[in-house]
Amino acid sequence: MSSPTGSTALLTDQYELTMLASALRDGTAHRPCTFEVFTRRLPDGRRYGVTGGTGRVLDAIENFRFGEAELEQLAATRVVDDATLEWLRDYRFQGQVDGYPEGELFFPGSPLLTVRGTFAEAVVLETLVLSILNHDSAIAAAAARMVSAANGRRMIEMGSRRTHEEAAVAAARIAYLAGFTATSNLEAGRRYGIPTAGTAAHAFTLLNDSERAAFESQIASLGTGTTLLVDTYDITRGIELAVEIAGTGLGAIRIDSGDVGVLAQQARDQLDGLGATGTRIVVSGDLDEYAIAALRAEPVDGYGVGTALVTGSGAPTAEMVYKLVEVEGRPVAKRSSHKTSRGGRKAAVRRYKETGTAVEEVVYQVAPGAAEPVLGPHDRFLQIPLIRDGKRAEGVPTLEEDRQRLRHALVTLPWEGLKLSHGEPAIPTVFHEA
Amino acid sequence: MSSPTGSTALLTDQYELTMLASALRDGTAHRPCTFEVFTRRLPDGRRYGVTGGTGRVLDAIENFRFGEAELEQLAATRVVDDATLEWLRDYRFQGQVDGYPEGELFFPGSPLLTVRGTFAEAVVLETLVLSILNHDSAIAAAAARMVSAANGRRMIEMGSRRTHEEAAVAAARIAYLAGFTATSNLEAGRRYGIPTAGTAAHAFTLLNDSERAAFESQIASLGTGTTLLVDTYDITRGIELAVEIAGTGLGAIRIDSGDVGVLAQQARDQLDGLGATGTRIVVSGDLDEYAIAALRAEPVDGYGVGTALVTGSGAPTAEMVYKLVEVEGRPVAKRSSHKTSRGGRKAAVRRYKETGTAVEEVVYQVAPGAAEPVLGPHDRFLQIPLIRDGKRAEGVPTLEEDRQRLRHALVTLPWEGLKLSHGEPAIPTVFHEA
Repeated sequence: MSSPTGSTALLTDQYELTMLASALRDGTAHRPCTFEVFTRRLPDGRRYGVTGGTGRVLDAIENFRFGEAELEQLAATRVVDDATLEWLRDYRFQGQVDGYPEGELFFPGSPLLTVRGTFAEAVVLETLVLSILNHDSAIAAAAARMVSAANGRRMIEMGSRRTHEEAAVAAARIAYLAGFTATSNLEAGRRYGIPTAGTAAHAFTLLNDSERAAFESQIASLGTGTTLLVDTYDITRGIELAVEIAGTGLGAIRIDSGDVGVLAQQARDQLDGLGATGTRIVVSGDLDEYAIAALRAEPVDGYGVGTALVTGSGAPTAEMVYKLVEVEGRPVAKRSSHKTSRGGRKAAVRRYKETGTAVEEVVYQVAPGAAEPVLGPHDRFLQIPLIRDGKRAEGVPTLEEDRQRLRHALVTLPWEGLKLSHGEPAIPTVFHEA
Repeated sequence: MSSPTGSTALLTDQYELTMLASALRDGTAHRPCTFEVFTRRLPDGRRYGVTGGTGRVLDAIENFRFGEAELEQLAATRVVDDATLEWLRDYRFQGQVDGYPEGELFFPGSPLLTVRGTFAEAVVLETLVLSILNHDSAIAAAAARMVSAANGRRMIEMGSRRTHEEAAVAAARIAYLAGFTATSNLEAGRRYGIPTAGTAAHAFTLLNDSERAAFESQIASLGTGTTLLVDTYDITRGIELAVEIAGTGLGAIRIDSGDVGVLAQQARDQLDGLGATGTRIVVSGDLDEYAIAALRAEPVDGYGVGTALVTGSGAPTAEMVYKLVEVEGRPVAKRSSHKTSRGGRKAAVRRYKETGTAVEEVVYQVAPGAAEPVLGPHDRFLQIPLIRDGKRAEGVPTLEEDRQRLRHALVTLPWEGLKLSHGEPAIPTVFHEA
């Protein structure tokens, strides 16, 4: 269960609060700072990243408040001193957040989110911001690859059972962002207003005295437009029975096991032979983007996707970091290791050819007096204002708008950028020195 | 955000409710049924599974109630008919649940959880039960492998930022179950009473005018027993400064980058040379069970583990299923594919040698009049009562007890069962025919 108060404030690593306590004591807590979220690399072989979770980050920051339950816990465990508890009691983020909108593509070094405020108010958001962006962006990239592989066919997200129950709701939201048609997850429907779907599992057929009884019951309850699951006993017999009971107006059949490629063609032939030419075929069962692509030539009308989606299809986290890059206007960066860290607040421009194809991601330092890169006629700035003086900025796009954004963005990639095989990022990231 | 009501009822796949609606209409809804949770296989190459999430399942079932918010959503989207809405309004699970306690090892086919009740009351729990067990057991197995590799050294869980913010809390709980010493996650401390830890990130050093100022501030705030992060600029200089400021009573240093094996030995030599012989060395940064094992010969006192833990170290879900196995006392099973499904309610016994080493997992059908397997002097039944007539059974173990259970259970595996390399399950599962 979540915090009974609905607060997100303790979804936080302890060291953020101990740093805060030290900084309040020594006076550095109030220094104006910039933190930046970016990733040093895409998951192995991936050609693009997809920004996911920005909308949830805005909600979570609004609910980042230390109420009595949170303060009591910190006091009881003596994580911080009394002065820090008092400061937390009044906490409310008052700073500025800019970032890539959800559904925007990203590449190594893209400044996905820029948080400006005092050290104190910005440092405490690190864990929560990263949890959301790392999870949701991992799902977003996998989902986008699947939608791209499905080439316009209907996609249903049904992975809730294979991930944490709350991660499931977030994953369903992201699947919709990426172009999935619907989700099986009812809470995602309630919370985000996205379409839900689902009719019956094998359990329903097994519960009944016969497959015939189960199909008759489902048709009586859900109508002939429903989807009948035909593979509990024998698929050929199941299809025959489905059309016998529902008639040729049967909405769809679902096949959840076996070699679905071969079975889909057999099922299509059988359905057509029975006159059910409009009955759709939905397949499910351990599908990932490669399996979806492999079914392109088969008469499959829709895919049900579970495990591979909710686990990021091999890349369950996006490996983003939240780094302090500027203190009182001065660029800062760790320098003990080989990890690439560039200090200074940054923004980004994506350059395009006249044809609309993306060419490169230009990341540049934002500093007082420094010139922004000159835009070509097809180039565009990638960050938008998300929070201004602690309040949600006007014009933050809706989930539907972000869904369209991603659909369009994928079309702008160079053609090899959409390949599912391992490769380099679809466009290079160029660090522009002013 | 979670449901404002704290209800878990919509963390559910739609098809469970449409099946319910059909079954209420045709009268089969009230048939006594048994559902069973098991996995057909362990993740590729793993030698054992670890039951995780049982305690959370019990909490989640208690909160599985359809209040006004949930019913309104279902009514507005017409997922089910009015009769079903009325039935859901009064829903409360009244059945029986037996299962493996948390921290118990499991193998392919182990009956991890057995839910008995009417079809109606049991079918609606499928998604929620699986979400929790699949996530938590995936983390549990990864965590157990890491603790085993660390061979008694201190382990700190710090992966919250790399997974969904609520999954992070569950992962921290499971890491503790598996033997981790502490977590960075403050909400896990509040919700489950487990120890939390954390002192400072690189951001704190960068915020300050110098590393010296940062260390002085942290010592002033947290005392000399704290852990100083020494790798922001230059590790050798960082260690020198740390001991200069804190004295030889410095609690620990943390190294988060570079080749930590080589660096740990250098750091130990330097600390000893400075007289800080009691100062511990904590390493972090992309550690998994293999990296932890590789550091066994180095003078490392503690590990901070993040990404690999919260993503299940290559196996982010446990692939458990929730199958209807019995209807009105009659075994049922799907039979259209090659997937192994055995009907009938089952329980399990683990057989041991006189030396205490586990030999095999015996899974047997529980049927009226059927004999239980004869127990040898060291054998034991694996399921315990978890819910009786809808109420939490007496004697369900605490998290601390489950933590001890896992520690002892790992010792009972045949020696090759603890190897990190790919292999077969440590003991075979034998299906006992009565």
